[in-house]
Amino acid sequence: MKIIFDKSDLLNSINIVLKAVPSKTTMSILECILIDATTDEIKLTANDMELGIETKCKGEILEKGCIAIDSKIFSDIVRKLPDSEVIIETDSSLHMNISCEKAHFNIAGKNGEDFSALPDVEKDKFIYLSQFSLKELIRQTIFSIAPADTSNKIMTGILFEIKEGKMKVVSLDGHRVSLRNIELKDSFDNIKVIVPGKTLNEISKILNGNADDEVRLFFTENHIVFEFDDTVVVSRLIEGNYFKVEQMLSNDYETHIVVNKKDFMECIDRATLLVKESDRKPIVFSIQDGEIELKIVSTIGSMNEKISINKEGKDLMIGFNPKFLLDALKVIDDETIDIYFLNSKAPMYMKDENESYNYLILPVAM
Amino acid sequence: MKIIFDKSDLLNSINIVLKAVPSKTTMSILECILIDATTDEIKLTANDMELGIETKCKGEILEKGCIAIDSKIFSDIVRKLPDSEVIIETDSSLHMNISCEKAHFNIAGKNGEDFSALPDVEKDKFIYLSQFSLKELIRQTIFSIAPADTSNKIMTGILFEIKEGKMKVVSLDGHRVSLRNIELKDSFDNIKVIVPGKTLNEISKILNGNADDEVRLFFTENHIVFEFDDTVVVSRLIEGNYFKVEQMLSNDYETHIVVNKKDFMECIDRATLLVKESDRKPIVFSIQDGEIELKIVSTIGSMNEKISINKEGKDLMIGFNPKFLLDALKVIDDETIDIYFLNSKAPMYMKDENESYNYLILPVAM
Repeated sequence: MKIIFDKSDLLNSINIVLKAVPSKTTMSILECILIDATTDEIKLTANDMELGIETKCKGEILEKGCIAIDSKIFSDIVRKLPDSEVIIETDSSLHMNISCEKAHFNIAGKNGEDFSALPDVEKDKFIYLSQFSLKELIRQTIFSIAPADTSNKIMTGILFEIKEGKMKVVSLDGHRVSLRNIELKDSFDNIKVIVPGKTLNEISKILNGNADDEVRLFFTENHIVFEFDDTVVVSRLIEGNYFKVEQMLSNDYETHIVVNKKDFMECIDRATLLVKESDRKPIVFSIQDGEIELKIVSTIGSMNEKISINKEGKDLMIGFNPKFLLDALKVIDDETIDIYFLNSKAPMYMKDENESYNYLILPVAM
Repeated sequence: MKIIFDKSDLLNSINIVLKAVPSKTTMSILECILIDATTDEIKLTANDMELGIETKCKGEILEKGCIAIDSKIFSDIVRKLPDSEVIIETDSSLHMNISCEKAHFNIAGKNGEDFSALPDVEKDKFIYLSQFSLKELIRQTIFSIAPADTSNKIMTGILFEIKEGKMKVVSLDGHRVSLRNIELKDSFDNIKVIVPGKTLNEISKILNGNADDEVRLFFTENHIVFEFDDTVVVSRLIEGNYFKVEQMLSNDYETHIVVNKKDFMECIDRATLLVKESDRKPIVFSIQDGEIELKIVSTIGSMNEKISINKEGKDLMIGFNPKFLLDALKVIDDETIDIYFLNSKAPMYMKDENESYNYLILPVAM
């Protein structure tokens, strides 16, 4: 194999597939990137068996071939080469020569045939949306999935439900629910899948986020495939039935407030200073006409602050984990937020009129 | 005590004195900042018993007083306050109220009298130089002090020697020597002290680095004092006699090369990719007429690269720890560098004509 790359093209492609290289593994072949130039195209692939990424890379193939190469060493070397032409050449003993200007590296590779190819997925059911939309939907929900080591695997993923031309995206971790709804441009088949949080986290790092660039999502029983730019991402789905979210989202309320988002968020952010990870103190809201008082008392000290609000309904005193409030507030882009409460034991909802978002947070004992 | 600060003034002063708060200590009073407004000035002080920093802060004293307050909590709170007026008020039970706009914090303080004041140092012997010069001198030498846990404490400090209107600054760790010489604007008494590396590291973070702003250095038998802007830094000196550096710096050479600094540094930087911390492989120079070949062979792979040079004297093959080369090259600002070698067992010297700098590095076995 002998290929000439432009350094920046090669580095860009490496950085994309690196997202599928597992940080810890006992199988050294999984730590490799496959460089496949057996056809007229050059493809780079990484695959951790749950998530696989393949991307096409520009370059001139002088001699066809295929090799697997340690991703860390290879990416480190390419990153530090001069911005110039990079020539990669392999010999029969699976050694790779990397030359750039006057620098020459030689490192050991592995047989490309030992590398696990991406699963071949049937592409019939699909939708498309903009890279911007997908990236935003992920950002706006991923923070409330449960940690990867949670016993209930379903909570570690995000629900994607397509129905009647709309897509609903939901995550929950037992303390809160994050929900986003968007209208799709065309009508598609009904789909309901749970995508691993890890996949979405890595995908959102590679999406360019442009509103004009499209990403196509294909669905099968066990896999989801994302196609965009020169890249294909294949991921296993999480098996099982997702929670009945509609039953959790009530429209009943006794107290409704409208608050300036920035003021509210900055105040809660200050309150978190007094909370140590260990002693989980709640921030307490005292809601009255025209004013909400936020208060926290911990072993470190106390803090209180008043913020002007519009209020309808009953006065209320209720406590929350300030981190959960902040997580949701950070991804709401509205200047003012509508918040609904039923009583001090029932969840609060931050949602807009047409429910393009709905963030449910359970209260904690005060 | 009751004081009104502008948030940015207060935060700026806190950030300065924080540099003297020890990261680990069993004495909780050392984790505090002293706010002293017993006179007409407001002074903030932190002191870890080796290094103490005191800085004046603008503010309006409504009621005189003094309190010690946990530096971490206090700085975190002030940092997150709105950019506005901050009112600090203490009560007889040593609690501190911090108010800013509608936010009110209350945290526990400590008696200011329990705080260790900075040592009162006699200020007769002194020199002055620009903040720029001092900051540069530190940057250009501090990387080659020995780690703080080294048994020979002298190696953990930097020598400052003032003699005949010149200042010499030296650090060494047994593998290399870094030396800088500058001319002082005035003539001063002869001085020779060893300043702890930690002190200089913290100082260089607070110096603004302007060429027009001055810093005054006062010396006593056991202390050095830095005065600049509104800040005073007092540090203990390291006791003992410094190494006889002149004896280490030979002017004999058999090989002299002139190399482009950027090319040389980038090449060595690439070579370090193949070196794991554990297997300390040297980079080997093969010096010939017009060309130096740099080569490294490790368990990961091999690398070689040729760079054009001007050379006089003998051909030579010699090996070095690439990290030591990089450390020195990073702080040399010249476009081309003169390097002198005697033989493959003797140190190399990177120095300029008038010896404003001289970096000695010992070779390693190839």
